[in-house]
Amino acid sequence: MKNDTAILLVYCSDKPGLVHEITGFIHRYGGNILYLDQHADHEEKNFFMRIEWELEEFTVPPEQLEEKALKEIIRPLDMQYQLYFSSCKPRMAVFASRHAHCLADILHRYSTGEWQVEIPLVISNHEDMRRTVENNGIPYFCLPVNRDNKLKQEARQLQLLAEHDVEFIVLARYMQILSPEFVSSYPNRIINIHHSFLPAFPGSNPYRSAADRGVKIIGATSHYVTSDLDAGPIIEQGITRVSHRDTVEDMVRKGRDVERVVLAKAVYLHLNRKILVLNNRTVVFE
Amino acid sequence: MKNDTAILLVYCSDKPGLVHEITGFIHRYGGNILYLDQHADHEEKNFFMRIEWELEEFTVPPEQLEEKALKEIIRPLDMQYQLYFSSCKPRMAVFASRHAHCLADILHRYSTGEWQVEIPLVISNHEDMRRTVENNGIPYFCLPVNRDNKLKQEARQLQLLAEHDVEFIVLARYMQILSPEFVSSYPNRIINIHHSFLPAFPGSNPYRSAADRGVKIIGATSHYVTSDLDAGPIIEQGITRVSHRDTVEDMVRKGRDVERVVLAKAVYLHLNRKILVLNNRTVVFE
Amino acid sequence: MKNDTAILLVYCSDKPGLVHEITGFIHRYGGNILYLDQHADHEEKNFFMRIEWELEEFTVPPEQLEEKALKEIIRPLDMQYQLYFSSCKPRMAVFASRHAHCLADILHRYSTGEWQVEIPLVISNHEDMRRTVENNGIPYFCLPVNRDNKLKQEARQLQLLAEHDVEFIVLARYMQILSPEFVSSYPNRIINIHHSFLPAFPGSNPYRSAADRGVKIIGATSHYVTSDLDAGPIIEQGITRVSHRDTVEDMVRKGRDVERVVLAKAVYLHLNRKILVLNNRTVVFE
Amino acid sequence: MKNDTAILLVYCSDKPGLVHEITGFIHRYGGNILYLDQHADHEEKNFFMRIEWELEEFTVPPEQLEEKALKEIIRPLDMQYQLYFSSCKPRMAVFASRHAHCLADILHRYSTGEWQVEIPLVISNHEDMRRTVENNGIPYFCLPVNRDNKLKQEARQLQLLAEHDVEFIVLARYMQILSPEFVSSYPNRIINIHHSFLPAFPGSNPYRSAADRGVKIIGATSHYVTSDLDAGPIIEQGITRVSHRDTVEDMVRKGRDVERVVLAKAVYLHLNRKILVLNNRTVVFE
Repeated sequence: MKNDTAILLVYCSDKPGLVHEITGFIHRYGGNILYLDQHADHEEKNFFMRIEWELEEFTVPPEQLEEKALKEIIRPLDMQYQLYFSSCKPRMAVFASRHAHCLADILHRYSTGEWQVEIPLVISNHEDMRRTVENNGIPYFCLPVNRDNKLKQEARQLQLLAEHDVEFIVLARYMQILSPEFVSSYPNRIINIHHSFLPAFPGSNPYRSAADRGVKIIGATSHYVTSDLDAGPIIEQGITRVSHRDTVEDMVRKGRDVERVVLAKAVYLHLNRKILVLNNRTVVFE
Repeated sequence: MKNDTAILLVYCSDKPGLVHEITGFIHRYGGNILYLDQHADHEEKNFFMRIEWELEEFTVPPEQLEEKALKEIIRPLDMQYQLYFSSCKPRMAVFASRHAHCLADILHRYSTGEWQVEIPLVISNHEDMRRTVENNGIPYFCLPVNRDNKLKQEARQLQLLAEHDVEFIVLARYMQILSPEFVSSYPNRIINIHHSFLPAFPGSNPYRSAADRGVKIIGATSHYVTSDLDAGPIIEQGITRVSHRDTVEDMVRKGRDVERVVLAKAVYLHLNRKILVLNNRTVVFE
Repeated sequence: MKNDTAILLVYCSDKPGLVHEITGFIHRYGGNILYLDQHADHEEKNFFMRIEWELEEFTVPPEQLEEKALKEIIRPLDMQYQLYFSSCKPRMAVFASRHAHCLADILHRYSTGEWQVEIPLVISNHEDMRRTVENNGIPYFCLPVNRDNKLKQEARQLQLLAEHDVEFIVLARYMQILSPEFVSSYPNRIINIHHSFLPAFPGSNPYRSAADRGVKIIGATSHYVTSDLDAGPIIEQGITRVSHRDTVEDMVRKGRDVERVVLAKAVYLHLNRKILVLNNRTVVFE
Repeated sequence: MKNDTAILLVYCSDKPGLVHEITGFIHRYGGNILYLDQHADHEEKNFFMRIEWELEEFTVPPEQLEEKALKEIIRPLDMQYQLYFSSCKPRMAVFASRHAHCLADILHRYSTGEWQVEIPLVISNHEDMRRTVENNGIPYFCLPVNRDNKLKQEARQLQLLAEHDVEFIVLARYMQILSPEFVSSYPNRIINIHHSFLPAFPGSNPYRSAADRGVKIIGATSHYVTSDLDAGPIIEQGITRVSHRDTVEDMVRKGRDVERVVLAKAVYLHLNRKILVLNNRTVVFE
């Protein structure tokens, strides 16, 4: 059994001594560092770090950790930060639609324990997957969205997310564009899978566009949602080869296998607190 | 030693009996088919075929083949066609610039006999590679191009190409935009390598754009040049992974290895008469 | 809606006129060829062909097709052959074990209609997946196998396969070695997924071996089962990168995504009658 | 212009405070850390670190650095270490044979300044590449090796390497097996490229073996040479897809492009001091 850990993500302007100061804080209180990843962007002079340490012999109690870290390192070093505990499973909502392959894949990983995650609810604009989702013991809410009821339905969605204490959202081929207001409620906490190799073919029907353009490779892109359609920070991309023999339908079929894996990898990275975002780009500590 | 062969490329509207008729023609005169590839586009009702056969026991003499094929199959079946003989090495010009990695790669393949090709000349807008090219026994012409002399230099280039009986042109990171007039002189016979995964990042500085967008995969695209910049029929694409650690310079360095291989593959396909073009898309018989 | 088609797979010694003769047969009776793929192995002088044509205007009734083909082309040309009709869905059994990711993936493709297939039964040596399988309307048979009861259980399996009129079997990480007798009952009709890049790491615990050897890429291999363990004809392979950071558990996790996709691709190719086997190697018409 | 840096590579048993101590040493003397990568192997309790810092404001003079580091961190923490200065270009010998593609690729990267490296000599068992190598201003020694003169020629090679102050050796498809004595003179300092996806197909003729086995993917592996043939620590691997259409010659041709890139990547990593070796496995800080 893996021991309980704390995970601290920070970024700030690069300056001498950062790693030494941060590791000093953990060392001082008896913490055993399991993973340490850092990245210094020498062009823009930014510093990023992810550090994870065991809590077993760490003498600062979890409930006092944030305050102590703020006082001893975060404020003095003028850092932005996120602090997580491995004992606390992230609560993830899934938004789905008729294209169920990503949802089915997520449910499988959830049910087999591949991911340390809670899924308190699935929201869809169709009834199709209700039985499958409920068979996994997850509440299913069908909120059909159209042009007229969109804001009302989003209000209902936000309410459900709040009631279920959701930390972040996965759009598993949800096929609806979220309003800027909705997006701003979950900044860098909505993960989308787009079925193209962005920035090529944003928007709808990318496989049709790919076939028309005659590309030899198609792809999928997982990114955080921002108010700019398909233009948020990219988390992960994947590709597969196609040829003149592939119809749009073949691309859709082949693309599904890429989408599933790319989305799953992005969710895994997010769940494990491996991602930092700055200036619409991600730092991913794999 | 490989025997002499004839290669026939055809396309036409799809109709019953095409393969039977074409193979019948070859069979009738004792030809032994080595390779047969065909593709029927069921959506647009087009038929594409590449057929290669040995000439040793073929009773139609090479100099009469075109006429006989026209009479017996090509006109009756209303086909577009190209006819080649393996004994006749394609004559390829290379246009280069300061970024010499693709040119160096082509020269290596040429000098080791990997490709069945003649390179009667290299044209560059810089002197840099003169010695290397001339060491390979290939004439080198330096024609510096700027805004003012472009049309004049293109006229000189066209003259050189004609004098050296050039069949097709490879732009090995040539970095100059050819005029529509120049392009129209070599339709589907100018191969370019663009250092991005088209249609993403056309134009200049694609690695800078890729870094700014924060993509996780970069690529290269080889295509026939048309008067639309970076929008011609795609022959081949390749990719390599990058991360937040990669600076623009790292992407340039990693990209070079992809560009070289993608361009070489496209040239190899062209040399072996494996490519048909229709509606700005390629059919590539690998 | 796709029309009904016939699919003919043949191989024989290469000789002149084969394509012409075979296409002549189809043409003669008004068949419209949809796909034609052929391969001539010039080293071993073998000829392979897959041809699919529409039956709508074809004047030979399906029930007389085999006899007529035998008489007019197959016997005269001395060919081995397989003949299929697209109207006849293949019946596929799945053998599974505790590692359920491949089975879950297959069920998803089955339930969404991605594959034209019937799954009349799933056989497992564990009870774990009973509910999931039965929820898909598929009978589930749990036949635990150990050293002592293996032959008895195999006899029971063969009986179930016969009763359910099974055409071919997919071992979805079944983890049991089948007896040569069992294998010989379904020659080139048992598809296995091995969790390594064969011929590297055959046998058990390939991820452990991969980690010990310090490879930088791991893979999965789908192949037809022969009496030689993990040495049958390879249908498809896939890979993913790993590094020193990946523990055996990480490799197992990453490997699952490769296994799923590689097995699915092999099954898809088999279902679409795209594979010919000769001398322990496959010809795969993609 | 990049500033001068020092690079310290260390490994030792994992224990608390290592990163803090090491960064403390650099911080204490005013060093600005550019790159810090560390890896803790939790299974085998080993710790690996690569740290690179600017020397400009660092108050320890380069000539005293090793002694000071030994005294203050390396001995107290009981670490194995390597210390390098970026101002000191590695001196690399290349061993080649008739298959010149890797050598030509290395010369191109050398001549264009892609790599920070000195190549004081090339040793080959054939005369073929003399002119190309000497055109690059590099001395060329032809030492033909056969069964009888092998030890004598190796003695001559070792003498040449010593005279030219060579730090490490690249076997660019050298095709000769080095004696254990030779190998032990350059432990983890001889980089080989093997033309298969190891551990599959060690030894000679791997493409022939790959074709016979009918694999769908071929590869290349770069590794440090040990006295066990093709069994040394793997640095980098790459792959490319093949099919039943590919003859052995096609695989050789396609394989060359993989070999070149995989070897170049391994050399680049070695040149940049990114590799640590323990227990026949590499830790590669990319």
